Amino acid sequence: MTDDPPNPALLPAGLSDLLPPEAAREAALVEAMMGVFASHGYERVKPPLLEFEEGLLQGSGAALADQTFRLMDPESQRMMGLRADTTPQVARIAATRLRAAPRPLRLCYAGQVLRVRGTQIAPERQLPQLGVELIGVDSAEADAEAAALGVEALEAVGIAGVALDITLPAMSPALLDAAGLEGTARARLARALDRKDAAEVARLAEAAGPPAIFLVGLLAAAGPADGALAALRAAPLPEGPRRIADNAAEVVAALRRRLPGLRITLDPVEFRGFRYHTGVAFTLYGPGRTGELGRGGRYMSGEEPATGLSLYPDAALRAAPRAAAPERIFLPLGHEPAVAAGLRRAGRVTVAALSPADEARALGCTHALRGGEVVELGRAGGAPGPGAGDARDTGARDARHTKE
Amino acid sequence: MTDDPPNPALLPAGLSDLLPPEAAREAALVEAMMGVFASHGYERVKPPLLEFEEGLLQGSGAALADQTFRLMDPESQRMMGLRADTTPQVARIAATRLRAAPRPLRLCYAGQVLRVRGTQIAPERQLPQLGVELIGVDSAEADAEAAALGVEALEAVGIAGVALDITLPAMSPALLDAAGLEGTARARLARALDRKDAAEVARLAEAAGPPAIFLVGLLAAAGPADGALAALRAAPLPEGPRRIADNAAEVVAALRRRLPGLRITLDPVEFRGFRYHTGVAFTLYGPGRTGELGRGGRYMSGEEPATGLSLYPDAALRAAPRAAAPERIFLPLGHEPAVAAGLRRAGRVTVAALSPADEARALGCTHALRGGEVVELGRAGGAPGPGAGDARDTGARDARHTKE
Repeated sequence: MTDDPPNPALLPAGLSDLLPPEAAREAALVEAMMGVFASHGYERVKPPLLEFEEGLLQGSGAALADQTFRLMDPESQRMMGLRADTTPQVARIAATRLRAAPRPLRLCYAGQVLRVRGTQIAPERQLPQLGVELIGVDSAEADAEAAALGVEALEAVGIAGVALDITLPAMSPALLDAAGLEGTARARLARALDRKDAAEVARLAEAAGPPAIFLVGLLAAAGPADGALAALRAAPLPEGPRRIADNAAEVVAALRRRLPGLRITLDPVEFRGFRYHTGVAFTLYGPGRTGELGRGGRYMSGEEPATGLSLYPDAALRAAPRAAAPERIFLPLGHEPAVAAGLRRAGRVTVAALSPADEARALGCTHALRGGEVVELGRAGGAPGPGAGDARDTGARDARHTKE
Repeated sequence: MTDDPPNPALLPAGLSDLLPPEAAREAALVEAMMGVFASHGYERVKPPLLEFEEGLLQGSGAALADQTFRLMDPESQRMMGLRADTTPQVARIAATRLRAAPRPLRLCYAGQVLRVRGTQIAPERQLPQLGVELIGVDSAEADAEAAALGVEALEAVGIAGVALDITLPAMSPALLDAAGLEGTARARLARALDRKDAAEVARLAEAAGPPAIFLVGLLAAAGPADGALAALRAAPLPEGPRRIADNAAEVVAALRRRLPGLRITLDPVEFRGFRYHTGVAFTLYGPGRTGELGRGGRYMSGEEPATGLSLYPDAALRAAPRAAAPERIFLPLGHEPAVAAGLRRAGRVTVAALSPADEARALGCTHALRGGEVVELGRAGGAPGPGAGDARDTGARDARHTKE
């Protein structure tokens, strides 16, 4: 086996080709969502894919150290990392080259991120990512602006019915602090919360005494935001947790003013997966089973308070409705170039014959130019376009739809 | 010195941040040029940034082996490369996943490429690249389509007056073959051609005898295509070089039919920098001193004849005219959200106040919403936008234009 030449079609696990028409769809989704960010005054930055690892892994980047590919820079003999997230790079730009720019600073980005290992449910190791960072402002209004932008961007690409789930990653630690819980007892209770094991949380919290007991009620209160906020209001929380709860209520109110119809859920004691968030964190879900479409929340951008949002175009690609395949107009040899140019200016796709052997349907054309007129081709004998080739390899996310 | 903490603003040589407004301009140029490719029936593919090195360095990729970053895949324990060019990846896709798709196969791509070392005049180690590949067809019409697409894409982003320089990388080797030149004598003549040292070419070619002597005239014939083609027609070339010359004439004729006004030059004996081209090769130049904007030509895509074109968006960014900075409309606290949404739908940029401290001009706004009306702000006291921060670091390609 080891002497066999490697299969040239084989890509490393978690790395894949996006074929027609999916690659064009993804690019169009990204630019449409970036257009929404730009319309709200967010200005695009483009950090490099590679930079020195100490820069990349600073601040919020530290959470991704074990997911970052490293390579040696032959110029400087220093280690570089391939970015696994763009937020730490935007924080670097804000703190250095844009440190004199007025605050709040609104920046946005789109690009690829790479990670060393995929997970079982998300095997991809290269992911497209786009997002916004709102830097230098610590307010519920700012958090609401970032979250609402995510909803608006997804709506702009046809994904309606997005739901927003808010978590308060600092709440559980603050309650455990207030209860004076440390060491093994704290670790055990944190693990039970992490597993959402209500019985175990109740058992351990009761043993721990007063402020920890709120965890039992708050775990049960997870659900629609109004109910969860009512549970938070009703609980006689100590000062730290109370501030966190009041902030959550403000963020929800600011969101309701922006998006009255948005479905908002709140899980006050959830804290998984938000390793660098310092205030509210949020996740955007598509309707039905389309899964997580984006994530964001409050964090420290270097020394500055900030809030941000990342959207996952690969997930949006699965959730967004598909446009009809564009018409393709075959241009026979000797066609009038000005007529063809006029068709393209009108937004139509042309495919020019290069030899007498080229045939309209074989090239995936739905129409042809004949005597200066565009005529629709019959439905019989339609041939598949490029994407209908062999799509068996890993990463063939979508076979192409036959065009006729 | 070695104990100083590294400067967080410092990026590895040849890697840089693109700041506002340049990052948005680059993205808009790329999508506008990709739109031209799509309008001609080229369908987008998106290969991964990383793949196994043996795949990446096959065929035309071999020429870039020493410019390719490598890293170990912890999953497979095999070496991967970070692409230094996208063409070999598109060739792989055409030969594997799209091998059953009809020919000619028209594909396009846009993305980043990385290289181990920059050069003195082009220090960048990450470059945006976009292009087309026209696979499975060997004709002058195909070469002309690819080259003309480059001109049309550059025109679409406002770069008029593009000139096309055609070279015939196979011509000099064919003449040296016909002259039976080998070993040191051949290497010396090739070097003189490479340096365009006419006196040395003449001296060595005369010593070598008949077919080599054509090199003297062909070196002198470089210039406007009509003159160079006339020199090729006049020379009694042996069979191999004659075929190459006739093909060049066909490509020029096919280009003239598409773009009658295009300035075309032809350098029959130039062969630098086109290491994998098997037929005509071409370079697109912007007007004035804007330099090389793209490059392409005929090559083998695996086992198939192909022609392709790459454009360099970073060069296009320097050559393209700048649009006026967009108006930014400040939305005071308590503004009517529906009015603001209407402004954005009409293509305008809004910037919402998040606190009473936010001030329109400090946020780079040119206009403000007041009582439901958009009013222009006075010119005094304009504050710089984000890009006017510290742009001293390497890679600050453009300071932002102040908006007022």
